[in-house]
Amino acid sequence: MYYHDKRLQYPVKVTTPNPQFARMLQQAIGGVEGEIRVCMQYFFQAWGNRAPTTKYRDMLLHTATEEIGHIEMLATAVALNLETAPASAQEAGAADGIVGAVMGGGSAKASIEGLIHKNLLSAGLAAMPIDSDGVPFNMSHIYASGNAAADMYCNVAAESTGRVLATRLYNATDDQGMKDMLHFMIARDTMHQQQWLAAIEDMGGTEGLPIPNSFPQSQEHQEHNYDFFVTSLDGQYPEGRWTGGPTMDGRGEFTVFRNQPMGEEPVLGSARPDSAAQAEQIGEKPQTI
Amino acid sequence: MYYHDKRLQYPVKVTTPNPQFARMLQQAIGGVEGEIRVCMQYFFQAWGNRAPTTKYRDMLLHTATEEIGHIEMLATAVALNLETAPASAQEAGAADGIVGAVMGGGSAKASIEGLIHKNLLSAGLAAMPIDSDGVPFNMSHIYASGNAAADMYCNVAAESTGRVLATRLYNATDDQGMKDMLHFMIARDTMHQQQWLAAIEDMGGTEGLPIPNSFPQSQEHQEHNYDFFVTSLDGQYPEGRWTGGPTMDGRGEFTVFRNQPMGEEPVLGSARPDSAAQAEQIGEKPQTI
Amino acid sequence: MYYHDKRLQYPVKVTTPNPQFARMLQQAIGGVEGEIRVCMQYFFQAWGNRAPTTKYRDMLLHTATEEIGHIEMLATAVALNLETAPASAQEAGAADGIVGAVMGGGSAKASIEGLIHKNLLSAGLAAMPIDSDGVPFNMSHIYASGNAAADMYCNVAAESTGRVLATRLYNATDDQGMKDMLHFMIARDTMHQQQWLAAIEDMGGTEGLPIPNSFPQSQEHQEHNYDFFVTSLDGQYPEGRWTGGPTMDGRGEFTVFRNQPMGEEPVLGSARPDSAAQAEQIGEKPQTI
Amino acid sequence: MYYHDKRLQYPVKVTTPNPQFARMLQQAIGGVEGEIRVCMQYFFQAWGNRAPTTKYRDMLLHTATEEIGHIEMLATAVALNLETAPASAQEAGAADGIVGAVMGGGSAKASIEGLIHKNLLSAGLAAMPIDSDGVPFNMSHIYASGNAAADMYCNVAAESTGRVLATRLYNATDDQGMKDMLHFMIARDTMHQQQWLAAIEDMGGTEGLPIPNSFPQSQEHQEHNYDFFVTSLDGQYPEGRWTGGPTMDGRGEFTVFRNQPMGEEPVLGSARPDSAAQAEQIGEKPQTI
Amino acid sequence: MYYHDKRLQYPVKVTTPNPQFARMLQQAIGGVEGEIRVCMQYFFQAWGNRAPTTKYRDMLLHTATEEIGHIEMLATAVALNLETAPASAQEAGAADGIVGAVMGGGSAKASIEGLIHKNLLSAGLAAMPIDSDGVPFNMSHIYASGNAAADMYCNVAAESTGRVLATRLYNATDDQGMKDMLHFMIARDTMHQQQWLAAIEDMGGTEGLPIPNSFPQSQEHQEHNYDFFVTSLDGQYPEGRWTGGPTMDGRGEFTVFRNQPMGEEPVLGSARPDSAAQAEQIGEKPQTI
Amino acid sequence: MYYHDKRLQYPVKVTTPNPQFARMLQQAIGGVEGEIRVCMQYFFQAWGNRAPTTKYRDMLLHTATEEIGHIEMLATAVALNLETAPASAQEAGAADGIVGAVMGGGSAKASIEGLIHKNLLSAGLAAMPIDSDGVPFNMSHIYASGNAAADMYCNVAAESTGRVLATRLYNATDDQGMKDMLHFMIARDTMHQQQWLAAIEDMGGTEGLPIPNSFPQSQEHQEHNYDFFVTSLDGQYPEGRWTGGPTMDGRGEFTVFRNQPMGEEPVLGSARPDSAAQAEQIGEKPQTI
Repeated sequence: MYYHDKRLQYPVKVTTPNPQFARMLQQAIGGVEGEIRVCMQYFFQAWGNRAPTTKYRDMLLHTATEEIGHIEMLATAVALNLETAPASAQEAGAADGIVGAVMGGGSAKASIEGLIHKNLLSAGLAAMPIDSDGVPFNMSHIYASGNAAADMYCNVAAESTGRVLATRLYNATDDQGMKDMLHFMIARDTMHQQQWLAAIEDMGGTEGLPIPNSFPQSQEHQEHNYDFFVTSLDGQYPEGRWTGGPTMDGRGEFTVFRNQPMGEEPVLGSARPDSAAQAEQIGEKPQTI
Repeated sequence: MYYHDKRLQYPVKVTTPNPQFARMLQQAIGGVEGEIRVCMQYFFQAWGNRAPTTKYRDMLLHTATEEIGHIEMLATAVALNLETAPASAQEAGAADGIVGAVMGGGSAKASIEGLIHKNLLSAGLAAMPIDSDGVPFNMSHIYASGNAAADMYCNVAAESTGRVLATRLYNATDDQGMKDMLHFMIARDTMHQQQWLAAIEDMGGTEGLPIPNSFPQSQEHQEHNYDFFVTSLDGQYPEGRWTGGPTMDGRGEFTVFRNQPMGEEPVLGSARPDSAAQAEQIGEKPQTI
Repeated sequence: MYYHDKRLQYPVKVTTPNPQFARMLQQAIGGVEGEIRVCMQYFFQAWGNRAPTTKYRDMLLHTATEEIGHIEMLATAVALNLETAPASAQEAGAADGIVGAVMGGGSAKASIEGLIHKNLLSAGLAAMPIDSDGVPFNMSHIYASGNAAADMYCNVAAESTGRVLATRLYNATDDQGMKDMLHFMIARDTMHQQQWLAAIEDMGGTEGLPIPNSFPQSQEHQEHNYDFFVTSLDGQYPEGRWTGGPTMDGRGEFTVFRNQPMGEEPVLGSARPDSAAQAEQIGEKPQTI
Repeated sequence: MYYHDKRLQYPVKVTTPNPQFARMLQQAIGGVEGEIRVCMQYFFQAWGNRAPTTKYRDMLLHTATEEIGHIEMLATAVALNLETAPASAQEAGAADGIVGAVMGGGSAKASIEGLIHKNLLSAGLAAMPIDSDGVPFNMSHIYASGNAAADMYCNVAAESTGRVLATRLYNATDDQGMKDMLHFMIARDTMHQQQWLAAIEDMGGTEGLPIPNSFPQSQEHQEHNYDFFVTSLDGQYPEGRWTGGPTMDGRGEFTVFRNQPMGEEPVLGSARPDSAAQAEQIGEKPQTI
Repeated sequence: MYYHDKRLQYPVKVTTPNPQFARMLQQAIGGVEGEIRVCMQYFFQAWGNRAPTTKYRDMLLHTATEEIGHIEMLATAVALNLETAPASAQEAGAADGIVGAVMGGGSAKASIEGLIHKNLLSAGLAAMPIDSDGVPFNMSHIYASGNAAADMYCNVAAESTGRVLATRLYNATDDQGMKDMLHFMIARDTMHQQQWLAAIEDMGGTEGLPIPNSFPQSQEHQEHNYDFFVTSLDGQYPEGRWTGGPTMDGRGEFTVFRNQPMGEEPVLGSARPDSAAQAEQIGEKPQTI
Repeated sequence: MYYHDKRLQYPVKVTTPNPQFARMLQQAIGGVEGEIRVCMQYFFQAWGNRAPTTKYRDMLLHTATEEIGHIEMLATAVALNLETAPASAQEAGAADGIVGAVMGGGSAKASIEGLIHKNLLSAGLAAMPIDSDGVPFNMSHIYASGNAAADMYCNVAAESTGRVLATRLYNATDDQGMKDMLHFMIARDTMHQQQWLAAIEDMGGTEGLPIPNSFPQSQEHQEHNYDFFVTSLDGQYPEGRWTGGPTMDGRGEFTVFRNQPMGEEPVLGSARPDSAAQAEQIGEKPQTI
């Protein structure tokens, strides 16, 4: 179970509120590479973890719990950045009217608010669990496969795209408060990348490959399990680490195979009566009067 | 079954078309607190209502049917506000080119349309069942639980957030036609809040608590059913109506409980063979060759 | 920020694992009336709360944090109920083959797993953030409007439908461990209904109506703001608390109004050239060669 | 605006309630080819219709309004079919225990309800705006393009897939009441297919092609606008009405063209600094210490 | 199976990159009328086609494969149009600062990027499978009904709305490269409209009506299968091809019917005990203590 | 651009059709770890790839093109497994009536079809772009971040969860044809895991860390970038590779830090007038009459 402290994990300050930047920050809350995702992903991986040891479960709980605090920091940052967004025609009228005049094509005063959409209209100038385009986060992005090694790669992927996003946000602002918050979050993403890679090593590294390593490789099609398949019409392909030399698991050699049909043209045959296909698909006459 | 009259329930006039405001109005059509939601919510509550009396079903049908007309009014308002949005480079070129020049970073003429996205590209300058960010309405927001009291609270919630939205839209425009339409819709939201609260009273008010009142409270965990659980690390909590005095249903006293684990650490054990976990989770050796 | 304890808030025991019941429990995790929803809803309401006092924000944080523990309990219950679900043809073959034979229409052994779908295939016999039909939770259900009274009604609605669901689950099982867990959760839902109603009273009760109470009622259409609109063809309507007597806010009288068009037939006119309408809509000849 | 009559458009009777068939009927309510879709599609097409004449708008309103009654009939049919589904372990225990025993793998009594999932758990044995797999209807399926001819083809498509579904449901039941209801709905789908095809003819038939016919065909790439493109490796293709003879609009001849690259390999070049690409993509050294 | 050539089907050039136009182009990639949709729709129709002949399956494969190349062209066009979008405050600072100053309400430098949201933040200035509002494409839009004629109408609908979109994009730009690419795509949409209409004729044209034509029309409700139902309160309706004369399938006459209830008011009765309805719905006393 | 061959990449045979297994196979088509996902993910990564070399782009195109053929194989397998599913009451009546009788609670004949839902009702016994619970694939799962290393980890994650799924399907069937097809697909997943890991090594391996390596680590918060944060109340944590020793990038040492608030309690202050908050949040009196 869980406890809270009202103070933030790290300071969140905004020198110059910027409603547009609030919208960009939303990507780090409700984007597919955002903090709700990693928080819930680590929790579900922990809660469903089955293993002789509890150490992976335990580790995941520490980091999942940390991530709630990251959502909280970002939600605070969004709210602070929205502080100067006009909420009414009266307030907008006091701002520079030029944009409204040319953009709105009409009423100058309503135009700026339109740019922040749901954060004003649905949330009253606060953060929402949406991305930077206003699309709500969908929980299908919580990857927790029941295979701990697969999950760790999902986590490396999440923290890699997460740090990519955080540095883009860092680059996009020159507000010192925001830069400070983000440079802390970027550091935590660095650690979390390291942490999941460390867990992969802890589980045996390349011993863990191919994932799942509980399926006997003797039962997979061994003729093509280390082949790079070429699908270009002219048979050309880019040479690289993947077209020759020892495989990454050390159990084979990369080779190149020019893809071609090994199967036949599929035959599904006629549609069945009562399947509501057209009569021609069934091979009967139309059943109209 | 249903009938229509081509005339609108209430006049919809737009003095100065404003494409940005059209986008804001979309929240009242396809937002989670919009009119499609209440319309369909009341219909599904009515169509599935089971009770010895038909009066709630009947009442819901009246209001659901009214709400179709509200979607219609808003759809008309969106179309009218979009009337001056340029649909082509030629039209845009005739408008003030300044915005295009600085915003588009290139072709001045294509820039303004971008701001209204799908309403131009997918609907040809008309309303769509989307919210103000262009996200389509999702019917999972139709709450119809089969419990009439729970449904009424869902309806109060819908009309409360609905009236909040409508007043934000009212504040954001200074077009007299739009203000007139909205001040009618705000009044209807006032009534609908009253109506659902009246239905709750009609069903017995606090007699109806806790919802569902058909489950014997003797079977719930009575030690903690009126406790405010404190989860702060330091045990501090905000005092209020919820931390002392008689409960809202008049059957107990609010008390405060400092949350702590009553359960144990969960034990899921090792993963099963054939579950495609890693070999380490199963407690066996890797099945690679 | 946040902390965790590895122990559960309340004991979770399963005497006889039941994969079908695991699927039903998913509704309480990822359903629209489930625990992810209330947890995240209370967090976003807290993080975005603006008021002269922090007491509502503080209260919300206590309960949001409690709810993480509820998701955890349910996730544990799902995993425990899935323990006996066969994960392979070999395991299924050991179970009663009758169902497989008649249901699968073919291979007996693969049939039972099909019933639990993604919980086996995607999660390896663990809980997921999905509902009882396997639909992922969508964060658009997090209602946090920026109006504290509207939010409290959303919360009452959530806990009312939540307790309805919990009692349905309680009724549907006869496993003593599951009944024990659920009778605790039902009690907490009782308290949370009380708590949000208490907060509404704390904010002034009917003084808070209509929501938002910061919009001058003098600006709404006062002729129809307490009228029950009748839309039946024959003008009949169900009498009730909503058709007469003082309104719930004490500021008016309910009256009945037979709905009729006050507006005109809307006129959108011809489509514009370059809007990609048909030539007939524009009133020009087809632009084909 | 709109009116209602409490009576159904056509009788809905269920002789032998069948919860499984209730789930199948859900496809006709909330499926992509269901009645919510056509109802809302026709409404949005009507409300946004721009043309010198109002006849298409008017016609659409008649049929959209009819469709509300179809949703109502199906919702009633779902509720009636759910009447015998057990809602509790006690009720299920009274039913045939065999299925529970073999299916649930444990508690016999909870198993049957699992099959109907949300209709029991979330709606209390009533219809929901979901499809037969429990997926909520998503309003992005409301096609209203602003081009009346395109819309009519969307409508023919909707009524064609709709009638396909209705006949599958008719074939799948032998309940006389359900067959009666469905044979009425199938007839209405027949008419609606005719109606939209008639509207296409009314708009000029092949004169309307290609849609939109307001774009000058002289501006499209005329070398390939009537070519069937062959993409098979061996150049073989199925001959048919589409590979020769006059085109459907009577303005050309179908010809066959063997697809081949007319463009070059695209060149995007290096990633930009500050775009958070890897250093190798930018062509610089890693920025680590 | 499939092959590729690195060159594009048709040249894609951008003279003046325009980030706003990139966003508009996204509608043609991930919009419901976009290229992912037709590509996948034709593939799923082909892969599931059942008929005595393979010619429809074969034809669909040719065109589905062509459409992959269209997604590729548009993705290239989006990336090229994004080339000048600033990715950092430093880059934005070098651009015209006026817009930033008035729009952002604060930091000038972060404002422009906000307009392209996920394409910058999540994709690093590249195309995504989203529409012009940033909403991801949802595969429920792949219509493949198992009835070949219904599918062909779905395809005509897709190509009609697709060409409407393509001409809107053509009208919205004055970049010669983009106009050239689009005038090719518009031509292909012309052909594809013709192609699916040709397939309908190939399957027998009006012989195929009503779809499905394998359901005996003698079993549908023949009293109303060619009636235009009037739902207006005053009984007025727009005359047209659909209100009189021979039906489109040549097997009847259009007639007009004034809609009225043929069914009764539905009766669902009281809620069942244990269904978690309110006690009042069940007709029992509240089960509170 | 692209070409096709009508023959399958690898043989697809079904000895004993099994509709339940068809539904399970759907997870490999439209599940988040399925083939549509990897196909489209590799295509979008290729089409948006920016780098001084085209070798990653080229490699991605080969494999993306291969994956279309995998969707095709699975779609064929689904259709073949559905062949014996009854499509009508007549057909179902001929099958074993026992299940229908006990499951349907009524009409025996309609019950079995219900188990396959949309694959029968919406697709006429064919594959759909949905997962094993009938949820449509959502394109937000296409990860293409613009950072090639992050993308490669996303790909390893996709192929790891993909191979986990494929082995679960392999374990769940004893149909020799299906086992043969799956053992080929498992082999290809093995290769693709190797391939993306090889690409990571090709890009410099740990030199690429932290991702993105174009952001100067000197700008991240260096005090905590290699700290494992402990969030347990009692300060206990699981020791592992992540709590000590050299970091995975070789540039630091893992250390342990007990998480505690470094920030303050956030202060958002009162709500603004005109933001539609409650009057109490603004600190004013209710604006009712």
